[in-house]
Amino acid sequence: MPHPVIEQIAKADKAIVAEDFETLMGIYTEDSILVIEPGRHAVGKDAIRAAFEAIAVYFQNGLKVHQQGMEVLEAGDTALVLANTVISAPNCPEVIRKATYVFTKNTDGVWRCSIDNSYGHEIIGKS
Amino acid sequence: MPHPVIEQIAKADKAIVAEDFETLMGIYTEDSILVIEPGRHAVGKDAIRAAFEAIAVYFQNGLKVHQQGMEVLEAGDTALVLANTVISAPNCPEVIRKATYVFTKNTDGVWRCSIDNSYGHEIIGKS
Repeated sequence: MPHPVIEQIAKADKAIVAEDFETLMGIYTEDSILVIEPGRHAVGKDAIRAAFEAIAVYFQNGLKVHQQGMEVLEAGDTALVLANTVISAPNCPEVIRKATYVFTKNTDGVWRCSIDNSYGHEIIGKS
Repeated sequence: MPHPVIEQIAKADKAIVAEDFETLMGIYTEDSILVIEPGRHAVGKDAIRAAFEAIAVYFQNGLKVHQQGMEVLEAGDTALVLANTVISAPNCPEVIRKATYVFTKNTDGVWRCSIDNSYGHEIIGKS
């Protein structure tokens, strides 16, 4: 059985492609952080939702995302995901990002994304 | 002022080089996980200490480690560190690993390492 975090990522990818931001936001913690691009972050669900809406427009409402290989490392209520995240859009040829995601398990037993950094090590030196 | 997590990593690097495992273990959470090599993990402080003791011997008691660029992403009590970790030893020419570390802040206010994966994306497909 796949790790619950893997299922959450599959759900998030589907929601991003469908531009279903209501479902997407259910997968993030209240105080989560999203790397919009190296050096630029959105913090908190409202800001992250706004960022995803802008990203959808930027990619001409044709963003596709899926994962090509993932590994989960779990310690207590924290999980780190290493993923090869494949992204494409009408105005963006396919790129593979070495993404890093952190999920935390809440008292309700649900894993939610607290740190969403699809750029991985590309952010070093960019803040 | 550097993020407290950066200070903890500097302390850990110093302790690894000095083979001061008592200090080193103070930097890990009780249920932490260490990637010994892709596909092989140590879970919990006792197993991690034993792994570090074996690693010290493997590297002929001459392991050197330092960080060449780091970025910290924080969300609540969780922090993800992306680091270029430089490792060398008498029997190992210098290598740079694209490392990923997760720290969690305890109720005592101290950040400790819960997930130590110096191999980054190299672990994908190796478990």
